Amino acid sequence: MAIITLTTDLGSKDFYQAALKGSILSILPTANIIDITHEVPSFNISYAAFVLKNTYPYFPKGTVHLIGIDSVFSENTRYMALKHHDHYFVGADNGIFSLLFDEAPEELVELNIMQDLKYLHFPLVDIFVKAAIHLAKGGKLKDIGVPAEKVEERMLLQPVIERDIIRGSVIYIDTFCNVITNITKDLFTKIQRNRDFTLYFRKSETITQLSWHYNEVPEGEKLCLFGISNHLEIAINKGKASGLLGLHLSDIVRVEFHS
Amino acid sequence: MAIITLTTDLGSKDFYQAALKGSILSILPTANIIDITHEVPSFNISYAAFVLKNTYPYFPKGTVHLIGIDSVFSENTRYMALKHHDHYFVGADNGIFSLLFDEAPEELVELNIMQDLKYLHFPLVDIFVKAAIHLAKGGKLKDIGVPAEKVEERMLLQPVIERDIIRGSVIYIDTFCNVITNITKDLFTKIQRNRDFTLYFRKSETITQLSWHYNEVPEGEKLCLFGISNHLEIAINKGKASGLLGLHLSDIVRVEFHS
Amino acid sequence: MAIITLTTDLGSKDFYQAALKGSILSILPTANIIDITHEVPSFNISYAAFVLKNTYPYFPKGTVHLIGIDSVFSENTRYMALKHHDHYFVGADNGIFSLLFDEAPEELVELNIMQDLKYLHFPLVDIFVKAAIHLAKGGKLKDIGVPAEKVEERMLLQPVIERDIIRGSVIYIDTFCNVITNITKDLFTKIQRNRDFTLYFRKSETITQLSWHYNEVPEGEKLCLFGISNHLEIAINKGKASGLLGLHLSDIVRVEFHS
Repeated sequence: MAIITLTTDLGSKDFYQAALKGSILSILPTANIIDITHEVPSFNISYAAFVLKNTYPYFPKGTVHLIGIDSVFSENTRYMALKHHDHYFVGADNGIFSLLFDEAPEELVELNIMQDLKYLHFPLVDIFVKAAIHLAKGGKLKDIGVPAEKVEERMLLQPVIERDIIRGSVIYIDTFCNVITNITKDLFTKIQRNRDFTLYFRKSETITQLSWHYNEVPEGEKLCLFGISNHLEIAINKGKASGLLGLHLSDIVRVEFHS
Repeated sequence: MAIITLTTDLGSKDFYQAALKGSILSILPTANIIDITHEVPSFNISYAAFVLKNTYPYFPKGTVHLIGIDSVFSENTRYMALKHHDHYFVGADNGIFSLLFDEAPEELVELNIMQDLKYLHFPLVDIFVKAAIHLAKGGKLKDIGVPAEKVEERMLLQPVIERDIIRGSVIYIDTFCNVITNITKDLFTKIQRNRDFTLYFRKSETITQLSWHYNEVPEGEKLCLFGISNHLEIAINKGKASGLLGLHLSDIVRVEFHS
Repeated sequence: MAIITLTTDLGSKDFYQAALKGSILSILPTANIIDITHEVPSFNISYAAFVLKNTYPYFPKGTVHLIGIDSVFSENTRYMALKHHDHYFVGADNGIFSLLFDEAPEELVELNIMQDLKYLHFPLVDIFVKAAIHLAKGGKLKDIGVPAEKVEERMLLQPVIERDIIRGSVIYIDTFCNVITNITKDLFTKIQRNRDFTLYFRKSETITQLSWHYNEVPEGEKLCLFGISNHLEIAINKGKASGLLGLHLSDIVRVEFHS
């Protein structure tokens, strides 16, 4: 049974995401539709990319990931389908694809499926669905589009490295209010070279120890660790770090390594 | 695999909607259960009708739509099942059926399935589930109920037309904070007769152009268009119209056509 | 098709619950995954227990219920699987199992599946998924763990009985703002012995009648009944009782029976 996942900002109180599911089932009644999330903040491409980038590797190879963010028609909008790491992705070329992968996609086409005028405002239920189902049924990319050179680039704020210091920022706050930064484990390890460190945030908060687990410190105490997404994360054992520590999206954090 | 959709006000934090799914799967383990939404505001029949009316046509013919709004038992409550446009609907006769369709349902029965006393407070998991599964398996309406003449009528506020003016009102605000009115494309076109128009709302806001797409105006600018639901909609390109323009449910809008 | 239900505090805006689903589908592509809820407040074991206890009996026998609450690794954490009433449950031994059942589980093992280091922070997608799938495919408990004597006990506040009085408390407030107490129908009936009663709550509110249905009183009036969960519940017909009556979690209610 072909798996099609959905990552959208359509919410779950309106009829939009259900219409999308109905459209898929109308063409492929056996499709196994899995919601990644419909709670992406409206038009927030980097949020959607963070969620999908961290989710898709858990799915079986051959899964088709349909991305419904910022996909309304305009003269310059290109709709794309691509294959990467044996997964398929369908969405608008609004920059999200450059945030999903660290390299160029292995195979990339610009869709040339004709838009049904009936669904002018809703390419998701028309072009995207047709493309996703074609791929879910084992069809080839070249049969639904023309080869494309590259996707639109969008840059995220990257950590800045100054000798023994990494300056990063908060990129995501999860349901548990854990605070996730843009400092990856790879970067941290590369600069650390086994030295001690101090993590600074807010005016005067510091953490000097990397934890393996949230519950290595007493309940209510702050800690930092590399979480499931392999990003440096500031948390409170069984507490809500973002609120209690006053950390918000885009706030700066600083790691200093001691020689 | 039979598709059964769910439209309820049960929310997703309690055990109610999961109990409903479990009940379906206990009788028909192969049922393909699709959530339309469980986020209908409590007892809000017109909200549920708007969502389901705009969703069901996207689903395959033969789909069974189970409606779990305002369905608790009382002496006068009738539980109904009906067929319309090759879709099936099961729910309480509380007025929602008159809001779902512009015409009388093609085939209508009042359910005569006996209520299991064990589920006295929860007809959804008992009578409704049994009826929905009967229909999903290809059963006939007449085998689960007695023919009924008509459904309870509920009237929505309709737009008022005075020669060159349409007075409508806001009936729905979606996840994107787009403001949807009760003025349909059909009505608008009929009164417009190719004339220019001015859309008035709030104290002094006006729009004089119909857009085809949300992004035909610069980001942050207001626009109006006929959206996915074919209702006149006031939006802001990539902005939250209801908040920024101060438009709420039931607010009045006025369209004047210029001779 | 094997049914695996999910009860977690992972929320639906992050990638966690979708990663969990992907992990299941990667091993068992035909799994029928049903969300009980992902909206359990973080780490709230008694909330999760109340929801799952009231839901699981609606599901077919043989269903596997995966519980993802408070399951991060620590030296003392035991991961368990058990069979009870022909249902299977997989989760961390944090006390939730003692709240789910009134008796000891029929068959209980401590899982001895090795943790994949890659998923150190996320036993849910590794150990729990492997155990759940083993059981969903008809495997035996003894093949994934070693027999265990008992689960960790956690006590909930129980009602106090003083001759003709039951003192209980509010344990749950649902989506409709119905107020659910820890006084069960069994307890109430046992102490009542067909006598009249007065239910006291807040400073001076009283109810002296048990309703069968929410709509036995006029709209906007308060009532009490034994709801779907068979707990004494305070409600307002088509109104939001918790807000309107000022009743919150842990508030005390008192039932006095009159000789």
